[in-house]
Amino acid sequence: MPTDFKRPSGRQPEQLREITLTREYTRHAEGSVLVAFGDTKVLCNASVEPGVPRWLRGKGQGWITAEYGMLPRATHTRGGREATRGKQGGRTLEIQRLIGRSLRAAVDLKKLGEFTITVDCDVIQADGGTRTASITGGCVALVDAIRYLQRKKLIKTDPFRELVSSVSVGVFKQTPVVDLDYPEDSGADTDMNVVMTESGGLIEVQGTAEALAFSRSELDAMLDLAEKAGAELFAHQREALGLRD
Amino acid sequence: MPTDFKRPSGRQPEQLREITLTREYTRHAEGSVLVAFGDTKVLCNASVEPGVPRWLRGKGQGWITAEYGMLPRATHTRGGREATRGKQGGRTLEIQRLIGRSLRAAVDLKKLGEFTITVDCDVIQADGGTRTASITGGCVALVDAIRYLQRKKLIKTDPFRELVSSVSVGVFKQTPVVDLDYPEDSGADTDMNVVMTESGGLIEVQGTAEALAFSRSELDAMLDLAEKAGAELFAHQREALGLRD
Amino acid sequence: MPTDFKRPSGRQPEQLREITLTREYTRHAEGSVLVAFGDTKVLCNASVEPGVPRWLRGKGQGWITAEYGMLPRATHTRGGREATRGKQGGRTLEIQRLIGRSLRAAVDLKKLGEFTITVDCDVIQADGGTRTASITGGCVALVDAIRYLQRKKLIKTDPFRELVSSVSVGVFKQTPVVDLDYPEDSGADTDMNVVMTESGGLIEVQGTAEALAFSRSELDAMLDLAEKAGAELFAHQREALGLRD
Amino acid sequence: MPTDFKRPSGRQPEQLREITLTREYTRHAEGSVLVAFGDTKVLCNASVEPGVPRWLRGKGQGWITAEYGMLPRATHTRGGREATRGKQGGRTLEIQRLIGRSLRAAVDLKKLGEFTITVDCDVIQADGGTRTASITGGCVALVDAIRYLQRKKLIKTDPFRELVSSVSVGVFKQTPVVDLDYPEDSGADTDMNVVMTESGGLIEVQGTAEALAFSRSELDAMLDLAEKAGAELFAHQREALGLRD
Amino acid sequence: MPTDFKRPSGRQPEQLREITLTREYTRHAEGSVLVAFGDTKVLCNASVEPGVPRWLRGKGQGWITAEYGMLPRATHTRGGREATRGKQGGRTLEIQRLIGRSLRAAVDLKKLGEFTITVDCDVIQADGGTRTASITGGCVALVDAIRYLQRKKLIKTDPFRELVSSVSVGVFKQTPVVDLDYPEDSGADTDMNVVMTESGGLIEVQGTAEALAFSRSELDAMLDLAEKAGAELFAHQREALGLRD
Amino acid sequence: MPTDFKRPSGRQPEQLREITLTREYTRHAEGSVLVAFGDTKVLCNASVEPGVPRWLRGKGQGWITAEYGMLPRATHTRGGREATRGKQGGRTLEIQRLIGRSLRAAVDLKKLGEFTITVDCDVIQADGGTRTASITGGCVALVDAIRYLQRKKLIKTDPFRELVSSVSVGVFKQTPVVDLDYPEDSGADTDMNVVMTESGGLIEVQGTAEALAFSRSELDAMLDLAEKAGAELFAHQREALGLRD
Repeated sequence: MPTDFKRPSGRQPEQLREITLTREYTRHAEGSVLVAFGDTKVLCNASVEPGVPRWLRGKGQGWITAEYGMLPRATHTRGGREATRGKQGGRTLEIQRLIGRSLRAAVDLKKLGEFTITVDCDVIQADGGTRTASITGGCVALVDAIRYLQRKKLIKTDPFRELVSSVSVGVFKQTPVVDLDYPEDSGADTDMNVVMTESGGLIEVQGTAEALAFSRSELDAMLDLAEKAGAELFAHQREALGLRD
Repeated sequence: MPTDFKRPSGRQPEQLREITLTREYTRHAEGSVLVAFGDTKVLCNASVEPGVPRWLRGKGQGWITAEYGMLPRATHTRGGREATRGKQGGRTLEIQRLIGRSLRAAVDLKKLGEFTITVDCDVIQADGGTRTASITGGCVALVDAIRYLQRKKLIKTDPFRELVSSVSVGVFKQTPVVDLDYPEDSGADTDMNVVMTESGGLIEVQGTAEALAFSRSELDAMLDLAEKAGAELFAHQREALGLRD
Repeated sequence: MPTDFKRPSGRQPEQLREITLTREYTRHAEGSVLVAFGDTKVLCNASVEPGVPRWLRGKGQGWITAEYGMLPRATHTRGGREATRGKQGGRTLEIQRLIGRSLRAAVDLKKLGEFTITVDCDVIQADGGTRTASITGGCVALVDAIRYLQRKKLIKTDPFRELVSSVSVGVFKQTPVVDLDYPEDSGADTDMNVVMTESGGLIEVQGTAEALAFSRSELDAMLDLAEKAGAELFAHQREALGLRD
Repeated sequence: MPTDFKRPSGRQPEQLREITLTREYTRHAEGSVLVAFGDTKVLCNASVEPGVPRWLRGKGQGWITAEYGMLPRATHTRGGREATRGKQGGRTLEIQRLIGRSLRAAVDLKKLGEFTITVDCDVIQADGGTRTASITGGCVALVDAIRYLQRKKLIKTDPFRELVSSVSVGVFKQTPVVDLDYPEDSGADTDMNVVMTESGGLIEVQGTAEALAFSRSELDAMLDLAEKAGAELFAHQREALGLRD
Repeated sequence: MPTDFKRPSGRQPEQLREITLTREYTRHAEGSVLVAFGDTKVLCNASVEPGVPRWLRGKGQGWITAEYGMLPRATHTRGGREATRGKQGGRTLEIQRLIGRSLRAAVDLKKLGEFTITVDCDVIQADGGTRTASITGGCVALVDAIRYLQRKKLIKTDPFRELVSSVSVGVFKQTPVVDLDYPEDSGADTDMNVVMTESGGLIEVQGTAEALAFSRSELDAMLDLAEKAGAELFAHQREALGLRD
Repeated sequence: MPTDFKRPSGRQPEQLREITLTREYTRHAEGSVLVAFGDTKVLCNASVEPGVPRWLRGKGQGWITAEYGMLPRATHTRGGREATRGKQGGRTLEIQRLIGRSLRAAVDLKKLGEFTITVDCDVIQADGGTRTASITGGCVALVDAIRYLQRKKLIKTDPFRELVSSVSVGVFKQTPVVDLDYPEDSGADTDMNVVMTESGGLIEVQGTAEALAFSRSELDAMLDLAEKAGAELFAHQREALGLRD
């Protein structure tokens, strides 16, 4: 870390933004969580529907999928509405595939029974890290959806395995930092999204060199930061869900 | 009104739901208003962009347009995401055309100069009346966007003409009522959306018989209710905007 | 009415254009009507198909729907073909939803049995009022389609309730006029489409201020004109169908 | 020809259906022709627009193109509307490419100047041979559009070269026949569309074996029939256009 | 033939390019053939799938269909990827319909049983005549797919009727030539694709005048060339398949 | 590594499949490479076009982008053609975005000048690792395209920075292995794609737990394997390109 290093937000390299997880944010969804990572705000609605996609029918297991969207003016300048353009862009598809894969790691699909839980992550306001906020908040909404199934006695066993959370890490002005906001994200040399389980495992590691290649030691430093942040994120999720540590 | 008439919500026939208009709801848009008509909640973001559509270029006037969307789980059961289906449905297109026409009545486009203001109305939670809430809230966001243009000295004269608001009225169990919520909306014989200007003019009147035709006298009764509600809605808008009566 | 008021066509304010309804215009459709409101000409083909949309199956009732299209050179300048552009525009979707709703009011869907009648309204030549001509002509085609079902003994009871017709009214140069042609339509302050039943009920009232808001008294004057025109339109429909008055 | 050979319509093998060409069928298009080959009726509207497609700009020549559509109930059973399905099918694209190529042979594009003439061929009623009727009628509409350009003094020289017409021929029950109607078309072993110029040249020959391969001698017999029919079609076109023989 | 006539490639008018048919080119498809007509190279993969399209179900017969594509840089300048543009162009649809029709003539669909064979023809490198190469190579891949069905004892009788091949012929500088390469194709007055059966029948004849109309005698000369070329193509196919003459 | 560990292919854990890079595979593209990683075969065509995307214009720099496609029968069972379905799937978009980002790291875009190089990666045959083969082969095609620009004197300086290659690594039966083929890929616990530069930097690290989370030590072991494989891949690339070590 250069001696004059300073993050645009004034945060320490290992310091997360303020994290909030507001449950029951809307009233129709079986799980509805507004997650904020600082100024990044995502509404995560988990919807339970009977049945599974065609290719899973008759296998006695459930399915979890995610869809991601950005309100047109969630960003500094207005982005075109994907419904108007007639298709979801590559970035959107990539992100929602990531969220879906990540959340499936939190659940034993065999115990879920033939239900599909769709987690819609809609970005109300963007300031970097929308996909990591979506996974972290989406997991809480998913837990609420599973509790709904249990409360309604639609499933008998508990399909929940463990919490999943996600954070971005990067190298900004030669310094590894955690939870990049938009000014950092657009100026970083390297950007990495890490998805973790509460028991310490890695679900996804996606690192990208924006301008310069990164080294194994930078990768290690970033993973250390992610691990530390994960502990905080799991604590936020547990608190929001009223789970004992 | 039958003697045992009762609205599902317990409201009086002429009683609006609780109306709130929260300005500066998100931080990027030039105008950002969360409007609530009871449990119906719509985020109205007004975005200013230089330039006008091709067919208006060189005419020295501005343009105001609207887009409307519903988050997939704004409703009781999850609706498919329009971006995923690859097109906006007929209902969506119809509503956003209505919102655009209505808001253009609030502004002198010639005085706006060559700017386009796009008002995105995204329904966070739906309980009937999303289009009337969108117009009412969108007008407040539009005023904020115009104030932004003035504050930045991008326009010299004030293009704002007068406030525009909207409310639904209908015939529910043979009784004219105002501001129908979802249980009323789905059970009403007739449903009408009225868009009004503060000076007492009508911008749009869209009445639809859902099951039984309606009579001229029912139409009159509904318009009376709308007029009365309009006065309240204009007061809410003025208060939110800090305008003197 | 200003003393020097004159409609571009020389018609009186309450005077309809020449109305013709030609049945059996094409030979394949169960009902096929060419309707002309002056130079506006629409081919209305009603097609009977067994079965109903998925969401109505097993309810023992039928369905009536409409589709609307404009031949590319029905208008002064060639409009793009919607099939080439790859989607129906918002105006098209809005109009065909209106036609469908209006025609459903003419029929008791429960008595129709599990049949779907699709009324295709294709504009051969446009001169204002294509949607009102479509509803008026489409209703005659619909009656022919119902008669076909009865003649073939596919249904036992008569699902027909009453005739439905439609006309446009507007305020042109401060004067309420009926059945606007294109020069009036493009210059009118207010434009309203009214859909009526033979028994005097209103099915749809859609009034739009193009430039200036309209008043309650203007609304009343327009509705009076529409009511008067309705009587003439029903007479045309009855005559075309050979119905006694 | 088998001794008991009989065409479903009772026509002789070399007999065309009744051909009519009605000019000025609609009033907006620069050329508007309703062509009937018996019960096959196609509205051919030729529209003149200044300019040419991007890839022709600056070459000082014009362009002629065609679009083809079938009204949903032009056929025995209702076909889906292509605008609703969101794309033109392969058959439609193939036909409109054929019509465009054929009509371009009638005109010297260099003499046309930088104008585009679009010929819309919309099938009002189908009974076999819609593409050949479209070419034959479209050529008459095209001539009217060229005359419009000359009358308006928008072009100085006459770009018209010679008439183009088209007819279908086929082998039906082992017998070569001309101008197949729907019952023949669906039962024919071989179907061939021939596009000819008045001076005796061939523009397109498209023969398809539906079930059995065809021989060179059958091909020759079909071409003889087409040549003979061409003479009649050119006479119809000349008469409709008031051209001396 | 003018005395100084010379084909760009130096070939004789009746001379085919070098033809190669490489079987088992890829390992997954039931039939996989790389066909080369000189520098035109097309990969033809025949895939066997149980079942038939909906409109054929229960009729106890099979189906053969084709799809055609061009790799973006198969041509001199890069063409847009159709998957990116979101639809197949008219030329592509026209070609794949032609290939499908042609290959169905090689097989008795009734004896095929309820299987669908899809022949994908993907152009690796284009130099004129991609559709004729696709049909010629696709037929060999189709035979391999049928042999697969027989080897796996999925069908009991042999549905194969006879070989089908295709070649282009044209009039280039007033001279009829066979198997046009790109420089000839783009300069030819007339271009014709002929699809033939081994027993001497014609399946498709598609002749197009690019600039000047063609005469009956030119048509005859072209067909003579095609017939002669067909004999060579069938020999290539037989040799590749190890069939005795 | 369990004592009885055996890869399906019999390879050692650190052993790559046979790698071949065939330049000038097709003749039109400025760079054309067929890359094989064992049975995975991808045709990588690099096309040079003048100009850059709109958002880069006037910045004096070039652009490199990639498109990815899979021939329908590249896989065990036929996959639908994306051009037919009308859109590229999420997996395709994700892969082509990855290839483009990776290849841009090989080049100094400022020195490229206002040219766009599009690298089309079309999978002829798939057996796991199509994206890593695409990057490795695409980089060689890219170098050829740059050499073309230099040979034609279209650019003066050399924009090439360093080679980029890619390999997959994974945990298969608890053992880290390199360059997974399809049987391993579909059975692996963890799958990671690594993109490297010749100078030892990391461009992309994308690790995904398919079933079980992975640990930091497994991540390290996989990265070690990737680094070792990278050295071999760079040697293959240098040899193919005739570069001295």
